[in-house]
Amino acid sequence: MEIANAKLILDILQQESSTFNDFRTIELAEFINEYPEHSHTIISSLEPHRAVKTLKFLDLKLQKKLIHTLPSNKVAELMQNMHFDDRTALLSELTSESVKKLVLFLPHDDRVETLALLGYPEDSVGRLMNPDYIEVKEHYTIQEILNKIRKYGRTIENINFIYIVDENEKLIDDINLKEILIASPDTIIGSIMDRKYLALHVNDDQETATSIFRKNNRAVLPVIDDGGILLGIVTIDDILRVESEEATEDIQKIGGTEALDEPYMNTPLFELIKKRAGWLVILFLGEMLTATAMGFFEDEISRAVVLALFIPLIISSGGNSGSQASTLIIRAMALGEINFKDWWRVMRREILSGLALGSILGLIGFLRIAIWSQFTPIYGPHWLLLGITVAITLLGVVLWGTLSGSMLPLLLKKMGADPATSSAPFVATMVDVTGLVIYFLVASLLLRGTLL
Amino acid sequence: MEIANAKLILDILQQESSTFNDFRTIELAEFINEYPEHSHTIISSLEPHRAVKTLKFLDLKLQKKLIHTLPSNKVAELMQNMHFDDRTALLSELTSESVKKLVLFLPHDDRVETLALLGYPEDSVGRLMNPDYIEVKEHYTIQEILNKIRKYGRTIENINFIYIVDENEKLIDDINLKEILIASPDTIIGSIMDRKYLALHVNDDQETATSIFRKNNRAVLPVIDDGGILLGIVTIDDILRVESEEATEDIQKIGGTEALDEPYMNTPLFELIKKRAGWLVILFLGEMLTATAMGFFEDEISRAVVLALFIPLIISSGGNSGSQASTLIIRAMALGEINFKDWWRVMRREILSGLALGSILGLIGFLRIAIWSQFTPIYGPHWLLLGITVAITLLGVVLWGTLSGSMLPLLLKKMGADPATSSAPFVATMVDVTGLVIYFLVASLLLRGTLL
Repeated sequence: MEIANAKLILDILQQESSTFNDFRTIELAEFINEYPEHSHTIISSLEPHRAVKTLKFLDLKLQKKLIHTLPSNKVAELMQNMHFDDRTALLSELTSESVKKLVLFLPHDDRVETLALLGYPEDSVGRLMNPDYIEVKEHYTIQEILNKIRKYGRTIENINFIYIVDENEKLIDDINLKEILIASPDTIIGSIMDRKYLALHVNDDQETATSIFRKNNRAVLPVIDDGGILLGIVTIDDILRVESEEATEDIQKIGGTEALDEPYMNTPLFELIKKRAGWLVILFLGEMLTATAMGFFEDEISRAVVLALFIPLIISSGGNSGSQASTLIIRAMALGEINFKDWWRVMRREILSGLALGSILGLIGFLRIAIWSQFTPIYGPHWLLLGITVAITLLGVVLWGTLSGSMLPLLLKKMGADPATSSAPFVATMVDVTGLVIYFLVASLLLRGTLL
Repeated sequence: MEIANAKLILDILQQESSTFNDFRTIELAEFINEYPEHSHTIISSLEPHRAVKTLKFLDLKLQKKLIHTLPSNKVAELMQNMHFDDRTALLSELTSESVKKLVLFLPHDDRVETLALLGYPEDSVGRLMNPDYIEVKEHYTIQEILNKIRKYGRTIENINFIYIVDENEKLIDDINLKEILIASPDTIIGSIMDRKYLALHVNDDQETATSIFRKNNRAVLPVIDDGGILLGIVTIDDILRVESEEATEDIQKIGGTEALDEPYMNTPLFELIKKRAGWLVILFLGEMLTATAMGFFEDEISRAVVLALFIPLIISSGGNSGSQASTLIIRAMALGEINFKDWWRVMRREILSGLALGSILGLIGFLRIAIWSQFTPIYGPHWLLLGITVAITLLGVVLWGTLSGSMLPLLLKKMGADPATSSAPFVATMVDVTGLVIYFLVASLLLRGTLL
């Protein structure tokens, strides 16, 4: 990573009275991520508001470390100046011990609110929520609303929507700030509302929230509870982060690794190996069945060694077509395009795709054997039968790979597991074993009396 | 997909004077996507503003069809009411023929602007840009700015930031609307600016823009040209869409499919097969080298058929460790965590990971052979040597898989190609061939004089 102004910042650090007010917080954060030894000096010298913004851009690990090592008056200042959602994100990474100590730095109301937010399940909308927003009653005029914004706006993260609630704090409508700015000051807000609003439920999982944001092109959404009471808002910056984290997890799982908790480069080597070893060993144990399966066909192989030559070609074709199918379906499910009840439509498409793709590979495989046999004796006098065996096997294996690759993610989801677990390597391994069985069954049917 | 209110909408369609003003646009869009036969009736009955919003949520294919089949006065109305960025997105999917016809519906200035936007390269920030925003000069007071917003705000997609430009339209600062709302009305805007702003360049590619949005937690950013002239703004809803599309492309490529242009279910079957057949055939041709490679070792196999039993196990272990490494690196590169100049740090980590993972699998492989041999004669009298051969091969193959899987994405990027092309199946295929060679070389070294 290029660090903007790294030299300049290092120079300033040499001076006695360091001031970092001329840098953007993201520059400072990038610098600190690269030179963590200067984190104390820099964070301490910033005014609280900027210190908090800088902190937000730091690696979570470094944030944790700073919170534990900065002088407590500084920590108190940071905690008090954080937005609720950022505070929840940071605290939820700490031990309950540290959390108890840290919330003592907060004023009473903030403390109660912060602990309530931490009470929502991980991966729920509640954890992303910010309980600071502008709410008004139906009878407010535009001017009164503008006054309220002027009074409270500074400490509120997002004021792009204003929320209208009734006397029980039940959400009635959301009004785009734009509507308010273009209306005349004496308009009563109740007269321009349409009582139509879109809201998240506090217990929705974050994946649902992402897809609602994506589908509706919204930058901020209100959060309500079962009774329709307005609890807070969720902003799209958190959603972009969740979306990106989810895609990362899915990609890592598709590649056959357990999802990493931190960026690749920051993951300690031992952790990295552990996350990979688990699945690699499971796949290896599964793949051992190929050795067992082939043990049953040892006789056939010794009678016709030429059969062994095509084993890698056949099993990898099944694996590749399975990877294609499973990744297509996993992603379509993650985007909400497909769910379990579409299984039959998916299966129909995949049967047809599998037949087409299998026929193409089967034909190429046959041609390869047929053409080679004109020039070398390697495939022996029965090359035609061998070619047919390989072609039929390829058709079967590709069809099977496509089918199991597409159905497995749907099944996993149905069973409550993460569809991305049916990774490319996992499907490939499953298909390898069955691919071998298909191959030797076809061979023993077609080649009995000739090669076998 | 559950369609909200589908029955209700169908009922209303039965009535003579259909009115759909009570539905949210997203509900109508979902309904139309499922029942495209009603698209004309519904779109025509909506007032222009809502029709455009509904259109935006439709599948691109359906949007295209509607634009081509609706009466031209309706099309003109739709075109005129679209935001610039949505119009660019739609027009860039049409033939230049249709574009020429459609821009005639626009007022002169809009037409010039729209054609200019279409002139930016695909995948550039220019294509996401909206040239409608609120700009002011340094000497404006807060009240003057509020008046300007009241006057022009209605037609502008996003007013969360106000841009200050000099007399040459050069961007000087961006001011959060919040700052304006909390300032007193007679403040001169020049007095609260800090001349620090973050902007995208119009020719930046969209991936760069996504990562700038993600890093800086922004919901809207200004776009400038080489001279610093303000050209437009990009809003985060477009970025969320780009981000999601990019992750989808990467995942599909990692799975060994060419990226689909449309959602899985909407991709015509023939298209779906074509997108998959390409890579599948390339991989198949590559994998044919395994048959060639094994041809060289046919003698060894016929002398020791037992060697053949471990072929699937060995090559798949190389493939799996390669998939893990390549997907981890591809994602880390997509998120900007790693680039080419980190290759040595990545390689060092991967050598160590490969050695560790290879040792684990090697050990398990050896134990399998050692333990089995106590109970069955299948591995013959030389099981110890065979076990060592398999273990050493596994170590070598996993190390090789890990290394090539991690280096290939970096190399591809360096050569200007998309790193995600080094898909799991691609790496697996590469590693299969070398895996076989490693296996038989180790075997001929260790087993000469005994099994061979």
